[in-house]
Amino acid sequence: MARVHNFNPGPAALPLAALERARDELIDFRGSGMSIIAHSHRGKEYEAVHDEAIALIRELLSVSDDYHVLFLQGGASTQFAMVPMNLLPAGKSADYVITGGWSEKALEEAKIVGTVRVAATTAVGGKYTRIPKQSELELDPNAAYVHITSNNTLFGTEWFDFPDTGKVPLVADMSSDFMWRKFDVNRFGLVYAGAQKNVGPSGIAVVLARKDLVEGGRKDIPKVFRYKTHADNRSLYNTPPTFSIYLVRNVLSWLKDQGGLDAMEKANREKGRLLYGTIDENADFFRAPVEKESRSLMNVVFRLPTEALEEKFVAEAKKQKLVGLKGHRSVGGIRVSTYNAVSLESVQVLTTFMREFAKANG
Amino acid sequence: MARVHNFNPGPAALPLAALERARDELIDFRGSGMSIIAHSHRGKEYEAVHDEAIALIRELLSVSDDYHVLFLQGGASTQFAMVPMNLLPAGKSADYVITGGWSEKALEEAKIVGTVRVAATTAVGGKYTRIPKQSELELDPNAAYVHITSNNTLFGTEWFDFPDTGKVPLVADMSSDFMWRKFDVNRFGLVYAGAQKNVGPSGIAVVLARKDLVEGGRKDIPKVFRYKTHADNRSLYNTPPTFSIYLVRNVLSWLKDQGGLDAMEKANREKGRLLYGTIDENADFFRAPVEKESRSLMNVVFRLPTEALEEKFVAEAKKQKLVGLKGHRSVGGIRVSTYNAVSLESVQVLTTFMREFAKANG
Repeated sequence: MARVHNFNPGPAALPLAALERARDELIDFRGSGMSIIAHSHRGKEYEAVHDEAIALIRELLSVSDDYHVLFLQGGASTQFAMVPMNLLPAGKSADYVITGGWSEKALEEAKIVGTVRVAATTAVGGKYTRIPKQSELELDPNAAYVHITSNNTLFGTEWFDFPDTGKVPLVADMSSDFMWRKFDVNRFGLVYAGAQKNVGPSGIAVVLARKDLVEGGRKDIPKVFRYKTHADNRSLYNTPPTFSIYLVRNVLSWLKDQGGLDAMEKANREKGRLLYGTIDENADFFRAPVEKESRSLMNVVFRLPTEALEEKFVAEAKKQKLVGLKGHRSVGGIRVSTYNAVSLESVQVLTTFMREFAKANG
Repeated sequence: MARVHNFNPGPAALPLAALERARDELIDFRGSGMSIIAHSHRGKEYEAVHDEAIALIRELLSVSDDYHVLFLQGGASTQFAMVPMNLLPAGKSADYVITGGWSEKALEEAKIVGTVRVAATTAVGGKYTRIPKQSELELDPNAAYVHITSNNTLFGTEWFDFPDTGKVPLVADMSSDFMWRKFDVNRFGLVYAGAQKNVGPSGIAVVLARKDLVEGGRKDIPKVFRYKTHADNRSLYNTPPTFSIYLVRNVLSWLKDQGGLDAMEKANREKGRLLYGTIDENADFFRAPVEKESRSLMNVVFRLPTEALEEKFVAEAKKQKLVGLKGHRSVGGIRVSTYNAVSLESVQVLTTFMREFAKANG
């Protein structure tokens, strides 16, 4: 079958160049006579890949020496637990800003570990359509940290200006918008991102963590769940998911070849402009529930006049090789995920289809 | 370069057929127009792979309905923590049998979580050369569980007859000898295995867990670390490492094609017979430190008369495309890992080289 236009929410589209490189090397990695999957994680062949992946993140995001760049097993769900296990000691409380289903899950997991507060929520009747303003945040100046979800895949909202949390470390789950553009890492205490949206396969998370927070982390938790353990061992404390890190390296290398994060941001903004433009120009047919200033550039969510039309939309799109458009089961509607690897061309094909569908069914 | 004979201790050799299948499908999975890596974990294409992998483990090991078969992120190191977090409640103690470096690590991690006892250790001056006899185990009849390491990759020892722990659940880290042969799962409360030796890539663990233990597991730990969470969700609670599970499926499918675990056991025993035979026939040159009845069929460890000769052995072997033979840095000497995917032919090439090397340097 010809290649489809993949708008999956994650696991998601990966750059074809990154996949082709993996395919071409899968049996024989750089003339070594074996697959990269079969190489030792203590050998020079794998370690070069590992170090290059870390260096590419440092370079693309200008990560300073004040931060560790870690690869950890599991995705954001594991970080929901690891963040409070490491950073929330007894006697302290952590602030959570709730902007969607994943924030809720992060909060629920933290509740099991320690004391938490909701510093703000934008929920109305169980739905979220916006990011809160700075003035809405009721921040505890003594909090261990403030946790936000920078992009909400289910509801299609995204933080564009990160909150000011004063001296309290800001922690962000950036799983679904990590590296869609440059951002100032120095504003954060810790950033984590499951790789399966913008930077790789599922099963691995990238963590950027301020060194003093890592050093001061709790020691009464299992060693394998301490950030410090992995920081002290360059993410080679235990056997890392070597092939997953190899794939992340391939994606980051492609990203750099594309012109880095400035070029990515430009392309992502253009994709968003096209999609939201098509929705707004056909406002009698498509309805975007998210407030304009909170509209995600990673997950564009919209509704059609009826659920029957939404089903028809998904089915007819599929015939044109436009796949992965069904909204999350808890939200319904249509969701277009436009991560870095989704091309402008794919979005153009989709918006053409959207206009035609609106015309034929409106 | 021509394919090498890969004796890596893990990540280790994978069957060529499993890798070729992955290569051929990497860009376009079964005509879907996208990579399996880019498929949703909630879609029918991936779910079929996921279910097939679980079904193959059930079939190959005759796992009864009393057990869950789980895929969990991370490897054995994560299980070192998860086992006591789930199964060791306050007021109880767990017994650990110490037979090598990995048992020690499992014990250290459990100590952070709860109360533990050493039921036996075969350490002599920090080295291990044997598996304890049943009569040596000082078992606590009220223990929450007894933990063993079924194969010790560093020291090259292996349990062939599992201990009788009465009514106390037996827990085994089988990372390095999982599925080298059939075994009676019903004798265990829980079995875990990092995949990167016998069944797949690094970054994923297979867990077989008795349903009553999972059900009765602790609820005061983060949800993502509860076996019950993953059991209740068919290992799809959070996004699983889809490509890693796909590769495990490929390996298990190959294993079945080879004639299943009886054929594997026969081949593994033949490889061991060849290697230990060569060592014993050249006992003035090669020295196997492990007691005969404890000799591992997965990691064959031996010494040469001098460290200089050991270095020469590794270097000359490499010229003949025999790689991964250096002993663990904490043990030294030579280690030959002969997991399922290492062919009899590779072992024959190695034993021929060993005889020639002994003759030339003895």
